[in-house]
Amino acid sequence: MTNRRSFRPRHECLIFRVMLQTIAWTGSAVRLLDQTKLPTETAYVDIAEEKQMHDAIRRLVVRGAPAIGVAAAFGVYLGVKGFRGGEGALLKFMERFNEVCDYLATARPTAVNLFWAIEKMRRAARDAGRDSRSHGDAITIDLIKARLLSAAQELLEDDTRVCRAIGEHGVKLLEELAADKARLRGGELSVLTHCNAGGLATVQYGAALAPIYFGAEKGMKFHVFADETRPVLQGSRITAYELKQNGIPVTVICDSMAATVMQEGSVAAVLVGTDRVAANGDVANKIGTLGVAILAKHFGIPFLVAAPTSSIDLSLKTGNEIPIEQRDGREVSEGLGKTTAPPDVAIYNPAFDVTPGELVTAIITENGVVRAPYVETLATVARA
Amino acid sequence: MTNRRSFRPRHECLIFRVMLQTIAWTGSAVRLLDQTKLPTETAYVDIAEEKQMHDAIRRLVVRGAPAIGVAAAFGVYLGVKGFRGGEGALLKFMERFNEVCDYLATARPTAVNLFWAIEKMRRAARDAGRDSRSHGDAITIDLIKARLLSAAQELLEDDTRVCRAIGEHGVKLLEELAADKARLRGGELSVLTHCNAGGLATVQYGAALAPIYFGAEKGMKFHVFADETRPVLQGSRITAYELKQNGIPVTVICDSMAATVMQEGSVAAVLVGTDRVAANGDVANKIGTLGVAILAKHFGIPFLVAAPTSSIDLSLKTGNEIPIEQRDGREVSEGLGKTTAPPDVAIYNPAFDVTPGELVTAIITENGVVRAPYVETLATVARA
Repeated sequence: MTNRRSFRPRHECLIFRVMLQTIAWTGSAVRLLDQTKLPTETAYVDIAEEKQMHDAIRRLVVRGAPAIGVAAAFGVYLGVKGFRGGEGALLKFMERFNEVCDYLATARPTAVNLFWAIEKMRRAARDAGRDSRSHGDAITIDLIKARLLSAAQELLEDDTRVCRAIGEHGVKLLEELAADKARLRGGELSVLTHCNAGGLATVQYGAALAPIYFGAEKGMKFHVFADETRPVLQGSRITAYELKQNGIPVTVICDSMAATVMQEGSVAAVLVGTDRVAANGDVANKIGTLGVAILAKHFGIPFLVAAPTSSIDLSLKTGNEIPIEQRDGREVSEGLGKTTAPPDVAIYNPAFDVTPGELVTAIITENGVVRAPYVETLATVARA
Repeated sequence: MTNRRSFRPRHECLIFRVMLQTIAWTGSAVRLLDQTKLPTETAYVDIAEEKQMHDAIRRLVVRGAPAIGVAAAFGVYLGVKGFRGGEGALLKFMERFNEVCDYLATARPTAVNLFWAIEKMRRAARDAGRDSRSHGDAITIDLIKARLLSAAQELLEDDTRVCRAIGEHGVKLLEELAADKARLRGGELSVLTHCNAGGLATVQYGAALAPIYFGAEKGMKFHVFADETRPVLQGSRITAYELKQNGIPVTVICDSMAATVMQEGSVAAVLVGTDRVAANGDVANKIGTLGVAILAKHFGIPFLVAAPTSSIDLSLKTGNEIPIEQRDGREVSEGLGKTTAPPDVAIYNPAFDVTPGELVTAIITENGVVRAPYVETLATVARA
């Protein structure tokens, strides 16, 4: 049975007519919406152990930086949940716990949320261990397990709160843009987005799409151009799917058409998510984002990045230090049901790119909107 | 039986180890390499009447502006080849001829080569009619038919000569770039191309790829990044296929990765074809070209366009006047063997875009290389 109670947000966004739960805790497993099956099938998969979670993250069953973080946190809990041991077993338990953390951290390299969430879990375990120093090992282990489950659940609820705050801050930016009527087309504010930083990349609401959902709830009219986002097509498969389900007008375009819709004057703003922001405002995001940012600059269109502070990594001076995941070339040549390149041809398939902070008009976090110089402003919103 | 004699170029390019004939005249039909089947199948289809040719052009069995022109010219001949009539039939023949020309001109709207080639056929018919004024209708009709077949064959041979000349002019530009060793990577000059303006877009050699083939023949070393070119994937399916067959190192990337390979310093030049050039140097080409041109400008990379003069349309002042073909959205959502977007979602699918002349570093024609101001220089190379 799915325990839905803990996933109902305190302030519901009415626009979510059909609420899709990206991640839910059933009481014994993590239920993931299998995003590899979208848009033709809405299927859920129950994950009961950490290897399955690693695989689910790796295969993009669950994707999107914030969602990956939450999923990994539950993965950590699943990895130690079944640990049995009496007195003297605490050391073994902590060894096992650390192994699980290290293992899950290898699932994907670019989104910092994964490491951030695992670090939260490590801290929860340390704190629980400290709080139960006077108890025996068995009691301590049980307490740590309970604290790990709550920590994962807190991350899940926190994500909803964060996305809501990003929506509220972001909608103000969109209202400013819409106030200039010359920017509207048929009364609609046209926004282009790349990949999916929507409800399906988070627990709900989304990062980049949250301002659109909250704006629509306030009566703003939008039209979204969704880049299909090759190779894995998160834009056409996932963004178009969730916007359609939530009643936001959406047009799918190939990535190669973004320049044309901008040239036609059809785009008032670009709104994307991020997998990691460096201290200077360089932004790693799905491959293709850099190109969109350069086009936006060329056409004088604001380029806005929605970033939960869990995606901000002040330990990295610039985006050059962000590890970029290289994925199997078959995602490009075989991923679509047909062979689309000659056998054995070389394929380059970086999953992310880095957009220099100079091209970023503003970064929308749950703690407010910041602009350049990011090296100063990001520190004012980032979490400790 | 295929009559191969007339398709052997006078000066063969040795690099074509496996010579693929995009278009060949068998004596009774036009044999087309079915490009919808690439890269998994090398199949030919014989076209015996004009409706089949219209359909073949429409469905992209044959594609690429120069190849479309030649194919349409043969289509015109096929449309009247079977016309039977004795004395007094000339008027009916000419009506039929004009109908066929008008009909084939509706196959696709953007590449001017189609209209240019059909115009060549109209002129051939007029000239033949004039030359045979003193004969009876039956003899005149036979003469016109014979002249139409030769005119189509001349266009086919002319295309080979034109592509060879583009190769020879273009290779000089590439040699200039390669002379700056800082531009080489591992001794190779890296070129990015979009869509296919190779041998398979022409009768042979290609437009944008001709300089690469002739440069390779002269001992230059290249590496080509082939944008896969959504939605129809002419880059991964066709460009990668022909480069591989001809021994040129090629790496397939998604269109969204072009910015990244440029940012990494891996691209010394962009080389593309065109479907129509306006008098001011605005260039229509496969959707996505505009984006690549903007990226090239951002990264300071030369953006070179190979254009047979049959693609230059001095009757259009700017690219705004070039009609842009809109194609079925199912090319985006269903074209790859899997459904990749939600049912009934809006899809925008323009097949071409227009790159402003300001972004074009040079245009390579068979009559030489021209640079801005195009409004002056294009007239010096364009055909009458």
